[in-house]
Amino acid sequence: MKKFGLYNKFSTVPGKADELADILIKAADLISGAHGCRLYIVNKDQKNSNKVWVTEIWDSEEEHSASLSIEGVKELISEALPLLAGPPEQTKLDVLGGKGI
Amino acid sequence: MKKFGLYNKFSTVPGKADELADILIKAADLISGAHGCRLYIVNKDQKNSNKVWVTEIWDSEEEHSASLSIEGVKELISEALPLLAGPPEQTKLDVLGGKGI
Repeated sequence: MKKFGLYNKFSTVPGKADELADILIKAADLISGAHGCRLYIVNKDQKNSNKVWVTEIWDSEEEHSASLSIEGVKELISEALPLLAGPPEQTKLDVLGGKGI
Repeated sequence: MKKFGLYNKFSTVPGKADELADILIKAADLISGAHGCRLYIVNKDQKNSNKVWVTEIWDSEEEHSASLSIEGVKELISEALPLLAGPPEQTKLDVLGGKGI
């Protein structure tokens, strides 16, 4: 099972994590139907109330990249940008195996 | 969809990441059948060849904790320990929503 994985860490301006999470859950609705998307999960960090994480798994990195131009996603990115304290940090992964997708 | 999520970061001694990943994939076979386990995925970090990540999603943190005493898991932990350069680092998450589990 060789797939592309991604942890996206979003740091928000104080008090805006829930609002950002709501936007990302809307994005999940649009993106999760895209070709090659196996997982798109929105999380809050238990220890840091201004961090939101998105866990993604895709059949390929190319399919992930293509998802950023899905209709409606750019509009959600525009809504999210003012809530961020800085650029998202990404950890790119080679998914080796396991269960659940 | 309120669930418990976990990113586990394992740092290995040089050259041992593949061996650790194989052990963790064996652990996935044992753990993924446990009550409450929704996701258990083993990954290598694309940028750092001595890092292995496990992404987990559980119905509750208690069910995750119980999984560490599943038969066979302790033996795999013993096999893994000599490969590690230090203790695993955990990021605990509140899973809010999304798709794929």
